[in-house]
Amino acid sequence: MQTFLEHAKSASRIIATLDPKTKMDVLAHMAEALEKHSALIITENQKDLEEAKKNNLSSALVDRLLLNTQRIADMANAIREIAALKEPVGRILEGWVVPSGLRIEKVSIPIGVVGIIYESRPNVTSDTAALCFKSGNACVLKGGKEAFYSNAVIASILQEVLEKFNLPIEIISLLPDSSREGVAKLIKMDKYVDLIIPRGGEALIRFVSENATVPVVKHDKGVCHTYVDKEANLDQAIEIVLNAKCQRPSACNSLETLLVHESVAESFLPRMKEALELTGAEIKGCDKTQNLLHVKLASEEDYHTEHLRNALNIKIVESVDEAIAHIAEFGSSHSEAILSENYTTVERFLNEVDAATVYANASTRFTDGGEFGFGAEVGISTNKLHARGPMGINDLTTYKFKVYGKGQIRA
Amino acid sequence: MQTFLEHAKSASRIIATLDPKTKMDVLAHMAEALEKHSALIITENQKDLEEAKKNNLSSALVDRLLLNTQRIADMANAIREIAALKEPVGRILEGWVVPSGLRIEKVSIPIGVVGIIYESRPNVTSDTAALCFKSGNACVLKGGKEAFYSNAVIASILQEVLEKFNLPIEIISLLPDSSREGVAKLIKMDKYVDLIIPRGGEALIRFVSENATVPVVKHDKGVCHTYVDKEANLDQAIEIVLNAKCQRPSACNSLETLLVHESVAESFLPRMKEALELTGAEIKGCDKTQNLLHVKLASEEDYHTEHLRNALNIKIVESVDEAIAHIAEFGSSHSEAILSENYTTVERFLNEVDAATVYANASTRFTDGGEFGFGAEVGISTNKLHARGPMGINDLTTYKFKVYGKGQIRA
Repeated sequence: MQTFLEHAKSASRIIATLDPKTKMDVLAHMAEALEKHSALIITENQKDLEEAKKNNLSSALVDRLLLNTQRIADMANAIREIAALKEPVGRILEGWVVPSGLRIEKVSIPIGVVGIIYESRPNVTSDTAALCFKSGNACVLKGGKEAFYSNAVIASILQEVLEKFNLPIEIISLLPDSSREGVAKLIKMDKYVDLIIPRGGEALIRFVSENATVPVVKHDKGVCHTYVDKEANLDQAIEIVLNAKCQRPSACNSLETLLVHESVAESFLPRMKEALELTGAEIKGCDKTQNLLHVKLASEEDYHTEHLRNALNIKIVESVDEAIAHIAEFGSSHSEAILSENYTTVERFLNEVDAATVYANASTRFTDGGEFGFGAEVGISTNKLHARGPMGINDLTTYKFKVYGKGQIRA
Repeated sequence: MQTFLEHAKSASRIIATLDPKTKMDVLAHMAEALEKHSALIITENQKDLEEAKKNNLSSALVDRLLLNTQRIADMANAIREIAALKEPVGRILEGWVVPSGLRIEKVSIPIGVVGIIYESRPNVTSDTAALCFKSGNACVLKGGKEAFYSNAVIASILQEVLEKFNLPIEIISLLPDSSREGVAKLIKMDKYVDLIIPRGGEALIRFVSENATVPVVKHDKGVCHTYVDKEANLDQAIEIVLNAKCQRPSACNSLETLLVHESVAESFLPRMKEALELTGAEIKGCDKTQNLLHVKLASEEDYHTEHLRNALNIKIVESVDEAIAHIAEFGSSHSEAILSENYTTVERFLNEVDAATVYANASTRFTDGGEFGFGAEVGISTNKLHARGPMGINDLTTYKFKVYGKGQIRA
């Protein structure tokens, strides 16, 4: 493991200062290579699919695993889009001159070696490799064991392109020991690895957070709320809540608990329930909600749950304060929305709710790198530091200060 | 510990949205209160000084502990300077409109609860408390046990001011259990604590890095280099090297190893040695250096050492490449300088050396929040992420995205 990571570290020094044009060329060749080797990728992918069948994986999981010509073309096009992104390295973030006459530039630079731990979808392998490459980082990828053959063939095709350009193949590598022990080792190698991004279930995130000495940017769960204020546009609110809950319930930015001001509950909730139930939503509610709607009681545990399916809790609150307090207790600081026409209430909510993304009069489903205009997305960070919320390619850089002098010494 | 941190967490919500004017008023009162209670502070400080004598602390350490009327006035003035800094919360870092018509603002916000672990100087207690307060954070302070009485009285004076303003005293608190076990608990309380900043010796930093589940911004050692290129202005080089090494050898940004291009070694090094020895510097060198100067041989360990005193290593290199490679191996990514008039060589060094701060033709001693124009400094981070290099008050903030809609739902 140590030798492997030493190679990744020294490879990271080479990719860090590669010129932008070469990086674009390499990525273009990678996209082409994936398409050219479609048949090979599909053959290897079949092995994963057969294993999946043997292990009785759900049809949803099997579908996530499946690669076909179209999906491989999509992967190639994702690499082309990443290649076309504005160069993330060398942006001057700030610059100024201090009284000593020194000129200081704060400049974006690659992070170094980035370890990424993820599950199922094999396209994450090529997406992530391309994002790290474009941002000048070496990456160590640890995909799900269910995609073993697919990830291996994708990585080796990308590495072949690196070789063609006389670049070290260790710029993109798969973690050789992909067992839990291998991950446990990786996340303690702070001498070689500069950042770990775990994307996956709560158990993985917890394990990595608790054991890593390498800095971690988590992609954890989303327990998101939408608060319908007494001054909300209720017609609009129905559409927004429907979208937030039902457009893609499995997404981390989808709604889990609807908070409704008591003074509009009676006029709003029966209509809302009807609209939700047309989509097959399963609704629970607080005791006040039960006075208005025929629903099961939501427990404390329900309020903590990321449902990942078309299910939600409804809670009636007395004020925006109670809504903010509920979110502070049960929210996961991911995406929180207020629906209101009142300026002061909206301001209070946006300022006082502590979450990566806070919305006025829009669906929480917009928390997404693409929707934010970042182009390809690394993921949605639930960290408070370094990168928060939708993570674009610029979040795969850090910075250095360049100081230009003419002989200055400190007095 | 948990109840204590729950209080800190809820206090952090109150300070987070306090208006700038009130924060300035509170800080002004804190400065005044410290001066008004000078006699009390000096009495309590005496207890620490007596303990220090009993424990045979070095005179340097005793001097760091000592508080007198002047030093207390300095502490008060430091708070006044922090109060006058530009409001760090609510800065719009970026803002744009996406195709869906959503308006997105990336806005600076407080981090939450910040734990700071530090040693000796009691002024760090008031400085840090003021920096955290101004940036809207609650802080949990863990000072050195040698400053126990001084830190306690300073904190309680600041807390009295909080009370006067009807603010929770838990906005500024000392860690109740300041033992190693107390610290071990604190750094695992990621539910309540958002950031740990350890400032101190290598053992402390290592302990915190290895055991924390809370994100850490380290203030670790500086093994800094200055490379005198074959095209350096040698007169200027003598002044810069003298300043980098001797102006304050105990500082983390002072020089440890001087790298000299072989083609100027013969003309430069004897003059440099003479100038250094006038300051009492202790010099070791590589075998090539020994051919030119009468000095002891520098070992591999010497190249890894942060001397913290007037001692340095000299190494003769064949090229800027060898200089860059030496720094990659032995540097601590703190502050690295090149002295050269050659444009391309300077560019290569600044771009290829991976350090928080890289200099052309200036002393590394400028790596400092004050010299960078940040006003009061939190410290000098050796992290690669979140905050790197000199850390100003803005580095005590993170960000959220505020999204302003008019009913948008995701297609």
